[in-house]
Formats: sequence, C-alpha cells, structure tokens
Amino acid sequence: MKIAILPGDGIGPEIIAQAERVLDVLRSDGLKMETEHAPLGGAAYDQYGAPYPEATQKLAREADAVLLGAVGGPAYDKLDRPLRPERGLLAIRKDLNLFANLRPAILYPELANASTLKPEVVAGLDIMIVRELTGDIYFGQPRGMGVNAQGEREAFNTMRYSESEVRRIAHVAFGIAMKRNRKLCSVDKANVLETTEFWKEIMIEVAKEYPQVELSHMYVDNAAMQLVRNPKQFDVMVTGNIFGDILSDEASMLTGSIGMLPSASLDQNNKGLYEPSHGSAPDIAGQNLANPLATILSAAMMLRYSFGQEAAALRVEGAVKKVLAQGYRTADIYEAGCEKVSCSGMGDAVVAA
Amino acid sequence: MKIAILPGDGIGPEIIAQAERVLDVLRSDGLKMETEHAPLGGAAYDQYGAPYPEATQKLAREADAVLLGAVGGPAYDKLDRPLRPERGLLAIRKDLNLFANLRPAILYPELANASTLKPEVVAGLDIMIVRELTGDIYFGQPRGMGVNAQGEREAFNTMRYSESEVRRIAHVAFGIAMKRNRKLCSVDKANVLETTEFWKEIMIEVAKEYPQVELSHMYVDNAAMQLVRNPKQFDVMVTGNIFGDILSDEASMLTGSIGMLPSASLDQNNKGLYEPSHGSAPDIAGQNLANPLATILSAAMMLRYSFGQEAAALRVEGAVKKVLAQGYRTADIYEAGCEKVSCSGMGDAVVAA
Ligand SMILES: CC(C)[C@H](C(=O)O)[C@@H](O)C(=O)O
Ligand SMILES: CC(C)[C@H](C(=O)O)[C@@H](O)C(=O)O
Repeated sequence: MKIAILPGDGIGPEIIAQAERVLDVLRSDGLKMETEHAPLGGAAYDQYGAPYPEATQKLAREADAVLLGAVGGPAYDKLDRPLRPERGLLAIRKDLNLFANLRPAILYPELANASTLKPEVVAGLDIMIVRELTGDIYFGQPRGMGVNAQGEREAFNTMRYSESEVRRIAHVAFGIAMKRNRKLCSVDKANVLETTEFWKEIMIEVAKEYPQVELSHMYVDNAAMQLVRNPKQFDVMVTGNIFGDILSDEASMLTGSIGMLPSASLDQNNKGLYEPSHGSAPDIAGQNLANPLATILSAAMMLRYSFGQEAAALRVEGAVKKVLAQGYRTADIYEAGCEKVSCSGMGDAVVAA
Repeated sequence: MKIAILPGDGIGPEIIAQAERVLDVLRSDGLKMETEHAPLGGAAYDQYGAPYPEATQKLAREADAVLLGAVGGPAYDKLDRPLRPERGLLAIRKDLNLFANLRPAILYPELANASTLKPEVVAGLDIMIVRELTGDIYFGQPRGMGVNAQGEREAFNTMRYSESEVRRIAHVAFGIAMKRNRKLCSVDKANVLETTEFWKEIMIEVAKEYPQVELSHMYVDNAAMQLVRNPKQFDVMVTGNIFGDILSDEASMLTGSIGMLPSASLDQNNKGLYEPSHGSAPDIAGQNLANPLATILSAAMMLRYSFGQEAAALRVEGAVKKVLAQGYRTADIYEAGCEKVSCSGMGDAVVAA
C-alpha cells in the first residue's frame, strides 16, 4: 500500500506529522505501508511555481491513497487565479477522478458542549453527507468573464451534470445508506434548476435498484433550514458539488467541533484522497496549537475505504475516543476541567492510546 | 396607494385575510389605500390555467405594491414545469423587476426559546440579508436538458451576472448598511466561480462610494458555517440569488420562528412585493392554525418601503410586539404558560393592539 502524503499549507504540516506518527504505530505492528511526500497548493507554488506540479501528479497517480493536510493562506491570495492553492485541490480531485466526497458530521458525546445548538437538538447526531465532487458548476464549461450583447461586462459559469455522473454518485450514496439506516435524502433545487430536476429523476431511477432504501427529496433552501431545525431527521444526504460544499460545512458546524471531522474523496475503485474537513488555519500555523484529530480520523477513513483495513481503522478511531474520554483537548475544543494539549501533545496521547 | 393582494395557495388566503384586517384599521384611521385581489400560483392555475395570468399581471403592474400570501402545494406537483405555482412567483419577480430581496432574520426576545440554538448565541440576533432576485442561475440562459457530445443525457443551467445587475444590488445593500451599523458582508465563492469573483470586484468598486461602510467578504460555505457558529457577527449580508435563497432560509431558521419573518422584494423605484418568508404550509391550510404575523409584518414593510409611511409601519410592528408580550401565540410558536390562539384569533389580538 502506497500513500502519497501532501502536507500542504498553514497547519497542514503539523497535523499531518501527527497522523504519520499514528500510521507509524500501525506499521511497527506489521501493517505494510509505504509513504512518500510531495507538496500541494501554496507549498507547491513556492517550490515549483504551480499548485499541482508534475512531481505531485506523478506521486498521487501512482499511490493507492492520498493523505492531505490543508491548502491555502493569505500569502497566496494575490496570485493569479490558476496559481492559487485551491486550484491545486480542485485539480487533484479532477485528475484522480475523485467524484465521491464523504463528509461525516458526528457529534462526539464528550464534546457536546462545543455545539452552538441546544444539547437535545444535536445529541447523537450522525449524518453522512455524500457530495459529488468532480462535476457541477465547479467544472462546467463555458465559464469566464466577458462582455454581453448589450456591451456590458458580465461573468458566467455553467452548472452541468451528465447521466453517468449522477448515476455513479447515486450508487455510492445508496451503497452507504444500505450499510447505515437505509434512509437517503437527495437535495436539489428541482423547482428552479433543470440540472437538479434531472439529478432528482436519476436518483429516482437508481432507487429502483435499492428497494430497501427509503429515498426522500428536499430543496436545498429547506435542507439548510432543516439542518438547523432538526438535524437528527437526516441519516445519509446526497447532493451536487456546490450544494454539498455549503451543506456539508453547515452540518459539520452543527457539531461545534469541525477540528474533529475527517473526509474522504473516492474514485470508482476506492482510491481516495483523505483530508480534514477544516481548512489551513493560517492564523495558528506553526504554533503547535492545531487539532490533529480530524487528520488522524481521515487516516482511519483511508485504512477503511482504500485499504479495507477495518480493524486498523477501528483501532485508530478507538484511540481517538479514548483520548477524548481521558480529557485531552486541543485549544479549539478545550473546556474547563479538561487537559489542554498542543498539536503534538494530542499526537502523543493518541499514539499512547 | 394601490395594493394588489395575491392570497395565493395553502394558508395564503388565511394569513392575507388577517393582514387585510390590520390594513383596514389603518384605513379607517385615515390612511388612503385601495386594494384589489388577484390569484397567483396554484390558485391562478385553477382559475386561468397559468400561474401568473394576464389579469394578475395587469393588476400587479398597475399597483404601487403587491402583498402576497404564499404559493405552492402538493396538488400542483405533477403539473408541467411552466405551469407550477413557483413559476408564478419567479415570473412576477422578473416581470416587475424586483431585484432586491430583503429578508430580515430577527430574534424576538419573547420567542427566544423557539430557537434550536443556545440563548447566548442568538440573543439579540438582527441580521438583514439582501438577496439579488432577478439574475443568477435562476434566470441565466442557456438552460435545459439535452444530450452531450458523448451522446449522453445531461442537463445544465447558467449562472450569470452583468455589471449593472451587481451594481444596483450593491447600492441597495450599502444603502441599508448606512441606515444600520455600517457593516456589510458580501458572500461569494470567488475561489471557484468567476461569476462571484466578478461580483466581489464590483462590490469593492461600489464600496468606494460608501467609505463609512466596512465591507467584508466571505465564501458561501464559510458563511453557512458562521451563521451557525456565531450569527451575531453579521449585520447586513448581500449575496446572489441562489446563495441568498439558501443562506436566508438558514438564517431565518436560527430564530426558530420563521412564522414571524416578513420579506420585501423591491424594484428600482421602491415598488415592492411583500410576502412572509415561510411557505404555503399545505398541511395546515384551511384549519385556521397558521401564524399570520409574518404577513402582517410584511404589510408593515410595505408601508415603510413602498409608501414611506414609517409611522404606520411602526404602529403595526408595535402591535405585533404587544401581542407577543401579552402572551398570544399561534401553534407554531406556542410554549407552556402562553395563550394559544388561532390564525384569526391572532388577527383579533393585533387589531385590538
Ligand atoms: C477550497 C475550496 C475550493 C473547496 C471547495 O469548494 O470544494 C473547499 O471549500 C472544500 O469544501 O473542500
Ligand atoms: C419557491 C422558490 C422558487 C423560491 C425561490 O427559490 O426563490 C423560494 O424558495 C423563495 O426563497 O422565495
């Protein structure tokens, strides 16, 4: 098993270092893994002048899985659009055909206070958002800025989905629903957008192959509302790239601890890119303050989805639960009575556990 | 002052009836207003076979303001796309050029418990969302379903904004920020979408004309998160049609009482359409259970924005505050110790106040 490690920018290198220590433990216990590093995003721009340079492409394509820290930071904000760090992230997703983005929103009982929602509304929250990641308005052509028929400046993007794009993400979502509570909510804006009306039709067609799964449909504006009103009504949600971007961030914030949430982006063959749901947090970068748990849990998702190592994945997740139960907290999830630890201190605790 | 009254579908006629009673009180106290009714949405389809028929167009164009209940319901779900109730709503917005949608999200202190968020997070919440309403992917061409170059079925929509469209909504938003706390947050996805990068550039240009207003920018995914994390950081937000649809619903649900929230959709000359933020609630239609306060408060917005009758608007808003303080509650906002009233019962209370 070959893992491409892309630390990225900001707190990326710090949190990745802790995840690697956890992988080292598994390796010393006999799990075979090779790791190799390459830059992505701003770090790649600094070294090679491009956010997804050839060296990184080569490594990422060869590897069985990619473990990513985070990309971006104010130092790169003034760069031309194609050079910016986020472009590296979008490029690697597209290049590796990572169309299925899985973003769990789980409330850890030990961190229940971190949520801004009332305890009774979020207790036990466990949602899996399945977001399509290589289509939609993110990649649709034509796009750009120009001058319209009236001689006025304008800009435009194209939301677009083909049947096969919707079908394959539908199968991923139904597959996950089958392994969970067999409830799937597809989110669209079919009352306004033909693209999502089409999306909805295909979801209904694919549903015939999964008669045990109860499929429901919700408009995106209502979904944004229902996530606040009663998030526990949801189990698995599936939606397009842009709606998924918005709703998965909203859902993860319901738990109050986005520093805890991993994500996976998979291709057709379970090759995947794994990264924390949070960003590169430039404000605390280099200070050994970041929470490495989302990255460590992303490594656990990697073991599960790309390597089929369920036992190892559970071992890592168990260690994370244990350190939380022991009261270890990085600054972002700290509350009185707990033990405040640094990024590497949290790594120590997980390794020990 | 001529008002076109469009009760619409579901609970629309019930809530409109209560708002009309409130307007009657003002009229009997000397405020000059003419009202005339016409159908919109499903009701219009039933009567004329179209969701925005000519009779309604004529009345709406002649009137100085439009007061709308709500449109839509399951009875119309099977209709062809162009005949559905929502199409009537989209058509009247476009026809009257109502490009500026103002959607306040206010927490009423008397209803603080209705929020799913912790009291300290939402106490005093008062956000104004300014949503562009006649452009963006809602109306952009080309759009539709078809077959792509690979012979596969696909569907597409176009997100599009011209300079003048962004400028005019920017001026509305900055104007409102000037009357409030001079803080404006523009929401975009400039890291991915050229359309919103263009939007952001124009916001920055227009900001030069309002040096007293502090303009900030936020990505839409982060905004969806920040609304949950710390909504009180926002004062006025401005965004495009689709992001505004999602974020304004999310924001209104933070207050826990969407049955209380009005909205205004204005053209260049303060002609406006006023409607509650909530929908047509077909499940409780015809049962005299709905909360008419959002519609009554929409009428107050109409008095303020379209008729410049600030005193009358304040009088209506004051009456609503009074009935809340008196403990009157419709079912949606009921809590123990209060007096549960029907839709018309709430109307009685406001009229009395
Ligand atoms: C950084 C950005 C391009 C990216 C996205 O919009 O997909 C991020 O928000 C995410 O969700 O991973
Ligand atoms: C009914 C629908 C077309 C409409 C919209 O998307 O604009 C509604 O959600 C709203 O926000 O007024």
